[in-house]
Amino acid sequence: MKTVKAEIIGIGTELLLGQIANTNAQWISSQLAAQGIHVYFHGVVGDNFSRCVETFEAAQRRSDLVIVTGGLGPTEDDMTRDAAQKIFSQKLIEDPESARRVEHFYLKNNRPMSPNNRKQALVFENAKVLQNEEGMAPGMMVEHENVLWVFLPGVPSEMKYLMKEHVLPYFQDYFQLQTEIVSEMLRFIGIGESQLEHELQDLISSQTNPTIAPLASEGEVGLRLTSKGDTEEEARSMIRSLKNVILSKMGDYYYGSDDITIQQEVLTLSKEKQLTIAAAESLTGGRFIDGLITLPGASSVCEGSVVTYTPDMKEKMLGIPGALIKEYGTVSEACAKAMAMNIKQLVKSDIGISFTGVAGPDSSEGKEPGTVYIGIQIKNEPVEVYHFHFNGTRETVRNRSVKKGYELLFHRLKKDLSSKKSGQ
Amino acid sequence: MKTVKAEIIGIGTELLLGQIANTNAQWISSQLAAQGIHVYFHGVVGDNFSRCVETFEAAQRRSDLVIVTGGLGPTEDDMTRDAAQKIFSQKLIEDPESARRVEHFYLKNNRPMSPNNRKQALVFENAKVLQNEEGMAPGMMVEHENVLWVFLPGVPSEMKYLMKEHVLPYFQDYFQLQTEIVSEMLRFIGIGESQLEHELQDLISSQTNPTIAPLASEGEVGLRLTSKGDTEEEARSMIRSLKNVILSKMGDYYYGSDDITIQQEVLTLSKEKQLTIAAAESLTGGRFIDGLITLPGASSVCEGSVVTYTPDMKEKMLGIPGALIKEYGTVSEACAKAMAMNIKQLVKSDIGISFTGVAGPDSSEGKEPGTVYIGIQIKNEPVEVYHFHFNGTRETVRNRSVKKGYELLFHRLKKDLSSKKSGQ
Repeated sequence: MKTVKAEIIGIGTELLLGQIANTNAQWISSQLAAQGIHVYFHGVVGDNFSRCVETFEAAQRRSDLVIVTGGLGPTEDDMTRDAAQKIFSQKLIEDPESARRVEHFYLKNNRPMSPNNRKQALVFENAKVLQNEEGMAPGMMVEHENVLWVFLPGVPSEMKYLMKEHVLPYFQDYFQLQTEIVSEMLRFIGIGESQLEHELQDLISSQTNPTIAPLASEGEVGLRLTSKGDTEEEARSMIRSLKNVILSKMGDYYYGSDDITIQQEVLTLSKEKQLTIAAAESLTGGRFIDGLITLPGASSVCEGSVVTYTPDMKEKMLGIPGALIKEYGTVSEACAKAMAMNIKQLVKSDIGISFTGVAGPDSSEGKEPGTVYIGIQIKNEPVEVYHFHFNGTRETVRNRSVKKGYELLFHRLKKDLSSKKSGQ
Repeated sequence: MKTVKAEIIGIGTELLLGQIANTNAQWISSQLAAQGIHVYFHGVVGDNFSRCVETFEAAQRRSDLVIVTGGLGPTEDDMTRDAAQKIFSQKLIEDPESARRVEHFYLKNNRPMSPNNRKQALVFENAKVLQNEEGMAPGMMVEHENVLWVFLPGVPSEMKYLMKEHVLPYFQDYFQLQTEIVSEMLRFIGIGESQLEHELQDLISSQTNPTIAPLASEGEVGLRLTSKGDTEEEARSMIRSLKNVILSKMGDYYYGSDDITIQQEVLTLSKEKQLTIAAAESLTGGRFIDGLITLPGASSVCEGSVVTYTPDMKEKMLGIPGALIKEYGTVSEACAKAMAMNIKQLVKSDIGISFTGVAGPDSSEGKEPGTVYIGIQIKNEPVEVYHFHFNGTRETVRNRSVKKGYELLFHRLKKDLSSKKSGQ
């Protein structure tokens, strides 16, 4: 397989004004990377004829594959077809099916169709037309002097539909893609990026196939492993071996791969163990339980939960004794402990988890913003209370608290599971 | 003021692999647009010497201002300095303050400093050095044959710091920016993008200064007004006049401008009227109340709230009669009504709002995914229940429900306020 040099060009003044980020280029790049196609350039240019032509000319000169997004709409600003015509001198003709689709759209929406809307159905005479089931303007592919040009609408849902349904499958044959690329994102929680990198430093710097790329996000760290092989099985087996080496060192912090989230993992473990979870949330204000209910199938684990944001509500809804609050305050180990026990009691759940603290920006009860207590009771075990100090804005403190709640639950659930298994 | 033609170049293979989106280019573009500097091109290129040089050469030829982000780090991959040297043939020298900063970082973190880390302190001999208080590698500005080059680190927080503290203020003088640009984003809820555009069609197509740009996002629509004037006051006054015209037509749907969110507006109105809000959430699982508690100062409005995800919890925590659930189901007008009344009662709040429905992916109680009931009771007024059918994934249905809850509350609170005011 020869190296395919690809270039992605986004057309649209809204990109140059910074109104939106070029997420199309990111998504397309990740799809091409997964097929072993090398992206060498991204470009963005506005709705301007001569600058479009300049950009297209450079692409024709230096790339094997050019993917253009945007500029296919009905207005005079939409410049992609005209500029591309300077490159390939092909006539534009109306594609009957696309014209029908445009007409149908206006009929269905009971809106009059102005003549310029037919422009969206224009395609190059030798183009392979890509019917757009998600919108009006079709995509198209044109081969010109050994360069394959792909034109796609700028609306992300339409672009993605056409890429997945038509374009990516076409590339497989067209470019005779033989190298198989496999990648897996390993996800870790409870360890910082620098510590993880430090522990794996030798591996990371010596590895070339598979490669290891660390990626930090709020409260967790990922390692992307990417391998190339002649067959998918060969590539997969290289990933498996490397993963085993990494997990033998850092397995305690690993919670899952690829699209798995820590919430999903907590939900899955709870289901496996038939445990229900109820939360009593103060500073996190419902965000913890929302993270579980986001997931399909949450109802067997989450039955009910409360948000008690004021001291009064902690008394009224959870029955925290006024005397306790008076003595220790609501931002305290004692209050977190009582909240976890009492929500478990109230909902009759197997697990009670509580969050109380100071999100900021102001201090509260003489405690600094970022002071957070998390209480956890599982079945009739003693309640455990964890004390943290998180730095950052109100938003960061709340997010870190929620993430930490999942992390603590995950490690508890996993430990119980493994100690049970080893005891069998 | 002559037109300044700017170009933004991002350096980094992680961009071409699609691991991250080029949000740096978006942010810089929006800042330049606000200063009246025209961005004509965005480019992204990997950590490759010859392609960096090719990209830099094109920029030197066609632009007045080139902003480069990334590629200033310590590793051999970091190519920006070497490639730029091909353009300006200036020597690289060590900047003493930056060298101290790099050394200090390693000392402070108790880590050994490898010699290649000093590379980060290298600057062009005639550069204006921009000290990086947020990281290690300094930024720099170099003038070469009438083109101003700005080099910035790729880490967004460092890039933004240097832009705000050093680069943008410098541009003001350097480019003699005289035109003042003012913009305001008007935010509307309860009306679709196409309907809003349709109502304002004549205005949108005829306006050139200020311009009007519609922007849709989930469940709401924005209109960005942007004006240019010789003075800020002139630009502001143009925005004010146009805003008045737009609001005289569409004011019923307008809720605020710029960074205001609908949650913020609901919180502000509730505070003004000294009303507290409690929610009983089923399918929205805490996301509604979380949206309020996210905001500083929420505690005077949100005291407590419940998530009752199962029928059993609706009975136990909210006292919804089992007979009602048996007869109508939990996804029903009757249940939404009882939930709104009972949460208001339980928390002794002024407003009770309830959410019950089917988020999907599966049907529930014979109701299709997307079926949603929202109940609202304000003080002792009769409960109003609204019935919706939202299309989309579980995530979309839940988000649309939450947004709709804010929209309904906003319109109720605003109506009460204006009828009170007009009755004074």
